[in-house]
Order: sequence, then C-alpha cells, then structure tokens
Amino acid sequence: MSEIKDITKRDEDFAKWYTDVVTKAGLIDYSSVKGSMIIAPYGYAIWENMQKVLDKMFKETGHENVQMPMFIPESLLNIEKDHVNGFAPEVAWVTYGGKEKLDERLCVRPTSEVLFCDYYKKIIKSYRDLPKLYNQWCTIVRWEKTTRPFLRSREILWQEGHTMHATKEEALEETLKMLHVYEEFQKKYLAIPVLVGKKTDKEKFAGAEASYSLEAMMYDGVALQNGTSHYFGQGFARAFGIQFLNKENKLETPYQTSWGVTTRMIGSIIMVHGDDRGLVLPPNIAPVKVIIIPISNKEDVISATENLSKELKEHNISVKVDNSSKTPGFKFAEAEVKGYPVRIEIGPRDLEQGLVTIVRRDTLEKATIKKEEVVEYLSKLFEEIQDNLYTKALKRRDTMIYEANNYEEFKEIAQNKPGFIKANWCGNVLCEEKVKDDFGMKSRCLIEDEEVGETCSICGKKAKYRLYFGKQY
Amino acid sequence: MSEIKDITKRDEDFAKWYTDVVTKAGLIDYSSVKGSMIIAPYGYAIWENMQKVLDKMFKETGHENVQMPMFIPESLLNIEKDHVNGFAPEVAWVTYGGKEKLDERLCVRPTSEVLFCDYYKKIIKSYRDLPKLYNQWCTIVRWEKTTRPFLRSREILWQEGHTMHATKEEALEETLKMLHVYEEFQKKYLAIPVLVGKKTDKEKFAGAEASYSLEAMMYDGVALQNGTSHYFGQGFARAFGIQFLNKENKLETPYQTSWGVTTRMIGSIIMVHGDDRGLVLPPNIAPVKVIIIPISNKEDVISATENLSKELKEHNISVKVDNSSKTPGFKFAEAEVKGYPVRIEIGPRDLEQGLVTIVRRDTLEKATIKKEEVVEYLSKLFEEIQDNLYTKALKRRDTMIYEANNYEEFKEIAQNKPGFIKANWCGNVLCEEKVKDDFGMKSRCLIEDEEVGETCSICGKKAKYRLYFGKQY
Repeated sequence: MSEIKDITKRDEDFAKWYTDVVTKAGLIDYSSVKGSMIIAPYGYAIWENMQKVLDKMFKETGHENVQMPMFIPESLLNIEKDHVNGFAPEVAWVTYGGKEKLDERLCVRPTSEVLFCDYYKKIIKSYRDLPKLYNQWCTIVRWEKTTRPFLRSREILWQEGHTMHATKEEALEETLKMLHVYEEFQKKYLAIPVLVGKKTDKEKFAGAEASYSLEAMMYDGVALQNGTSHYFGQGFARAFGIQFLNKENKLETPYQTSWGVTTRMIGSIIMVHGDDRGLVLPPNIAPVKVIIIPISNKEDVISATENLSKELKEHNISVKVDNSSKTPGFKFAEAEVKGYPVRIEIGPRDLEQGLVTIVRRDTLEKATIKKEEVVEYLSKLFEEIQDNLYTKALKRRDTMIYEANNYEEFKEIAQNKPGFIKANWCGNVLCEEKVKDDFGMKSRCLIEDEEVGETCSICGKKAKYRLYFGKQY
Repeated sequence: MSEIKDITKRDEDFAKWYTDVVTKAGLIDYSSVKGSMIIAPYGYAIWENMQKVLDKMFKETGHENVQMPMFIPESLLNIEKDHVNGFAPEVAWVTYGGKEKLDERLCVRPTSEVLFCDYYKKIIKSYRDLPKLYNQWCTIVRWEKTTRPFLRSREILWQEGHTMHATKEEALEETLKMLHVYEEFQKKYLAIPVLVGKKTDKEKFAGAEASYSLEAMMYDGVALQNGTSHYFGQGFARAFGIQFLNKENKLETPYQTSWGVTTRMIGSIIMVHGDDRGLVLPPNIAPVKVIIIPISNKEDVISATENLSKELKEHNISVKVDNSSKTPGFKFAEAEVKGYPVRIEIGPRDLEQGLVTIVRRDTLEKATIKKEEVVEYLSKLFEEIQDNLYTKALKRRDTMIYEANNYEEFKEIAQNKPGFIKANWCGNVLCEEKVKDDFGMKSRCLIEDEEVGETCSICGKKAKYRLYFGKQY
C-alpha cells in the first residue's frame, strides 16, 4: 500500500509528482537504454485509444496510411537547407551495416518530410495525382540530451501527415483543417483546452513557411505544445524538383503540408487532470472506464461482481474487476493512482438492499445506486465527468492567463505568476529574444481573433499582433 | 491500359511476375533508400487488416501490448552468446548522436529478446508477477544484402510476442498456442494452408531451445516461412539473471517464449493466390471487398451505382466505386490487378431489368443478380471465394509434396519437381548439409503426426523423424 500511495504532493514538487504518477500508474518504466523509455501496457493502451480515434478522423478527412523507410541517407536530408540545419544536430547516425562501414551514413528519421518528398517526386506527374493525402504512424528519433517520460524522449511514437496540393489555397486549408481535427480531438477526448494559433517566424518548424500549434497549459502554468500543423508552400517541392502538369498542360510546383501529434499528449493528460492521488483519465480516452472492487470474499458479493462486469461488457463499457487478495483500502488507492474514471464498490450490506456504491474519480463523490440502474447511470456519469474535466481545466487555464500591456506589467507577471502572458507585439524577433533572456519564456502562438493593443508590450513600438508567451516543457 | 495489363506471365518468369504484381497492384513502391521499400496505401491497408485481426486474437489469449526501445546497446546484445552470434552480422549500428560519437554503439533492434529480458529482470520478482504476456508491434532492422518486397527487406514491420512463465510446461504450451493462433489466422483469413512443425537444431532461432514454424508453399513450389514461435527454456533468463520467488519462497528461473509474424505474409498471399491478371485477395483480409464499375455515364446508371455502394456500406461491406473517366475495359483490368474479391458491373441494359453483373475475382465467373438480392448473394459469395481459395491452394500444395524413401528418389524429385520433399531422417545435421549442398534445399520442419519410415532418406541409417525439405524465399 505504501508503495502505491507514496506520491509526492503536486504542489510540493510538480516534477517529482509527475514522475511518481507516470511510474506508479504503470504508464511507463525506465529502460537501461539511455534516453529511451518503455511504454508499459497501461500507457500503451491509452496510446492505442488515441490512435484508434485519430486514425478514424484522418480517414474520414480522406487520408491514407503508408509506411516510409526509417532511414534517411545524409544526401537526402541535405537537400532542403533550413530543414537540415534544424535537424542535423539532433539525429542518430547509422554508420555500419553488420561489419561493413556504409558508403553514406544514414540518420534514423527525426521526421519524414524529405522521405515523402522523394516519394512524391516519383508519383506526382499530373494534376490528376493531386492531392496526395498520406499519413504514417511510426517511431522517430531525436537525440535529446535530457529526457522526461512522454515529454522529451529520444524515441517518439507519433503520426505524421504529409500532403501535396495543386494550389496554395488548398494546402493552407489542409493545414488548418488538421489543426482543428487535433483541437477537436483534444477537447472531446482528452478534455484539454488548447490555444490554437500561428507560431512566430522564430519558433516555426525548420523549413516551413508557417507553423501552427496547439498549446495546452499544464497544472503548473507551463505550456506543452500538443501538436503542430505546418504549411510549407513550395519550398521543399522546389528543392526536390517536384512538378506536375496542370489542366492546361503546363508544369507547376505543388504546395505541401505536414502535421503531427505524439505520445506527448499522454503527458498532457497527466499534467492537466492528475491530482495528489494520481492519474485522472477522461472517460472518452480511458482504456478501462470502470473498476469493480468487491468489498468482501462472500460468494454473493463475488457473483454480483461477476454479473455486473458481464453486464457492463455487454453494453460495451470497458471494465476491470479487482478480485486480488489485497485489502479494499489498497485496491481503492490503486484504482485512484491508475485514474480509472469510475470505481464501483460492491459490499454485502449494500447488496442486501440491491445497491452498489459508485465513486467518480474526478471529484471522489460517492453515490449509492440500484443495481439495475447502473448502466444507465454510468452513461450519464461518463459524460458528466468528461464535461467536468474539460470545464475545470478551461477555468483553471483562463485564470492563469494574464494580460501585459507594457514591460513593467510583463515583468511583474513573469516573475510572480505562473501561466501564460498575453501581450501585444510589434513583430520584431528581438522582443521575443528579450523575453526569453529575461524570463526564460518563449512565444507560444499568435491569436488572430483577439484585438491587438496599441503598443508592443515589450519594446513599446507600434503593435501588430496578439502574442502569447509562456514557459514550456 | 497497357501499363496495367503489362504483367509478366506467372509461368514464364515467376520472380518478375511477383515484382510486377506488387508494384502494379499498388502495394509497394521502391524508395531511394537502398534495401528499404515504401508500403503504399493499398499494401498498408492489408497490413492494417492483419494487425486488427491478430491483435484481437492476441488480446483474447491474454496478451498486452507494450513498446520497448528500438536501440540495443552492444553490451546488452552481447549477453546471450548464441543470440549475438546469430544477429551481430546483420544489424545496423548507430555510432553518432548529433555530432557526438557515442561511448557505446547501439544497434537498431533486429528482434527484442534482450530488451524484454532486461525489462523482465526488473519487473519479475515473485510467482505473482508471472506469467508476463507481452507483445509489441514495431519495425525491426536486419542488414540484408539482397532484398525483395515483403520477402526480405532491411526494415520489417512485424509483431513480436515475448512471454515469461513459472514452469516449463506453461511456456511450452504458450509456444504451441501462439503457433496455432498463427495457423488459424493464416487458414481463416489468408486462405493459406501451412505446414506446422518444429525446426531442426540447425535451423532454429539463435538462442532458442526449440523453434516452430509455419511453412507455406508458394505457386512455384518454393517455401515461405510465414511465422515462427520459439521456446527458450531458461537460457536467456539465466544469462540475464532473471529470478522469481516461488510459492515456497525459493528462487527459481522462469521459462521464456517469443513468437512473430511480419508483412512477409502479404508476399505469401500474392504468391499463393495471385494469377496472370494480378493479385487475388481473400475476402476476409481484403481492404476493399467489392469494386463497383458503372458501364456508362448515364444518370440512372451513376445513381444506381451510388445507391448500391451506400447499401453495401450500410451492411458493413467495404466497397469502392470507380467512376473515373477511364474506359470500362481499363477499369476491369485494374480491378483484376488489384485483386478485389468481387467486381459489380452496372450497365444500362441490365439496369432496365433490375439486374447487375457480379464477377468473382478467383474464378472470373459472372452471374447476373437482381439488385435487391445483391447483399444476400455477396455474403454467401465471400464465403465461397474464401473457401475456394483455401481449397485450391491446399490441393495444389498437396500435389507438390513428394515422398522420398532413399537418396535416389530424393535426387530424382529434387532435380525435376518443384515443391516439398517429405523424407525420413536420422537426426544428423550432416544429412541436412548434404541436401543443402546438393540441391540448395533446407529442411522445413519436423512433422510429428506422420509415420516415420525405417531408414534415413539421405544416409540410409536408422530414421527417427519425419522431415520436410524445400527451397525457400
């Protein structure tokens, strides 16, 4: 029991709390391969649920899955200059195959723009071949110095969409469409509110014309970039010589996008919804929605447990029964660490009256419900929990976004209040650099639908944009 | 049209026929990364269907998915001696991370026994922790010199199950259980009959005590090993120092298995069922079961096409409509190359009478069916096609298995008849080596339920086993 309950308090040491939760909930384990983690069954099951939902959303928006090579020859990586400068410092290089030294070293893909371009060059000949809407689920590698489970890892499980279009308008539309697919997914399934906007030039993806991101705020006020969608214009396509014959039989260069999300989203669930007792999973993404715990070993309790489990399964509610020999107290604590959305306790006294006790993980509220009404009760309860988690996260986030109209205000907030700072910005990268130097904060994204103040909150010159700042994971 | 129909005849040049089919059916594309292929949307969709079915079967047999690191430090690979000797010559080595030379080089996993052992050492302490039944879906790398799409590739998509058990009996049971899960899958879904048996010591997996395999016979009589299941005994566990406290509180070493299948199964579908017109997919694994081709552009034909497509979708039948501007002849040819199990043609004359034409891909037989009876007809037809493909493959295979009771007979068959040779064997590896030197044939597997002849078909000494030989991909 002590092992389970031994979670650092969230407000005492947030970083340690996070590490306690990921390991004690059984999401990951450390491996002896430096910088790589093991995703344990419970953690992987969350990822499988994410994949299932997202894959369906991708297919409904016309995308097809493919599988590209995992190695990139150095000469291929070198074709687009901004891209290679951005990624070369952080890739793993394969130099030997068996005992033979390779003529050309290969990097393990850190992202696959160049591989897709190399493929698209081959298969795109005519306007009839467009758009190409491909996606791949795979592992990428980035040689990070310091790593944290789900947040920063040398190996990352993700999906990467790569598309090519005949027109700029269509490519821009795709970039935003997928950004909003992510936004909808994170809101509906992960119960996480996100700021959605364009990255500044300083923060955009290596080789992109425009990058858009989803910025979630963690419990400690720090940002987690929870997904990105990029518009490349014709940059890569030109560098790779990709051209197609348009309807007028003239050669044109197509327009490109890419977009991706990773297992990092699991980290955001933990840091947005988790509490001192452990993980709190939104029902829409939880691998196990209900844990049933029999309070005694009596035959009728055990059989009632089995019957209820069977009934829930018949209604497609994922359920687990804990009939181990541990004490009920230990089982409750474990169920809380694991963040199952709902716990059902079945005890002899309740049972005599045909009742069971239902405890929701998000509020820890208890209700006593007639056995025959459980299924109906649950279907409403899941919705309530899902809504509550989202609303709570949204409220909390909104109270942690502060407005700074000048650098005095900015400083006051940055030094005293964790969270995001909404500022007015002149557009000069020097202002971003100043904020980074002074407070260790980077710009998050430009928010288009907010009114822009008169003057830049950093330098005082004329402001052009509404820009959010925040520390980041 | 010529591009589509231009498939080499199967009996003229089987290797070229195979390459034509994989590329012209749109299953793969070549990449400029040597030794790696691109799995195109249609090929990947077949793999997704395989994954869906197998993953369900694995979960129903109690297995959980995890994700292990993709890199293996050299020292970890070196722990089990037979294993490292088997794999070290064919791995890709990462020696640099960014600009820094690594202290210890890492290989990209060729298989993950050592990674799982390293993990199991950490998490297995007591009999209560057993069995551990883990599986992972991932990409592995083997540095092959010559490669062929799906059959032999530097990067292989597969699943690998890795389990640990308290007793030898349980581990052996698991090894055979998963072997039979594969057998059932290949029979029911891929319509492929397989020989199932134990590998000889010479042919077993590096580090295993016993290896079992599924051996399918391709159209040309050559074997394709379509999956393996290994029993490791305590070899790896001892090398890694994995121990658990049994119920009597004494330390014991657990028993281990591993088992895997790969995208190679797609190659076996092609080479077992394909014909001169292209791919032939069994309905139970086909991403698109029905292609509907309107024979004219008339409004009522197009709307009948759309209505039928909608109706089939409502009955969960995967369907595609080809309403491109190509000629019907071209569309038919393309549908045949792609191996859609059923083609439905809708033309104006049929339509007047409320009929459609249904063509099955396996036999190319045509039937004219009332529109309102299509769904019912199809559900029976899919079963018929699935059964027919299996029966045909089984019959063909069985006519290509020959018995050799002495080396004269062996030689006569080996030199004249493509297929498998069933032989009696004394158990001496020299006999296997002789067959390999003389005819380029390796032993496939030991078949236990057949009677063993008196004398070894190779050396003439007393025979102990029934052993099949055959050339292999």
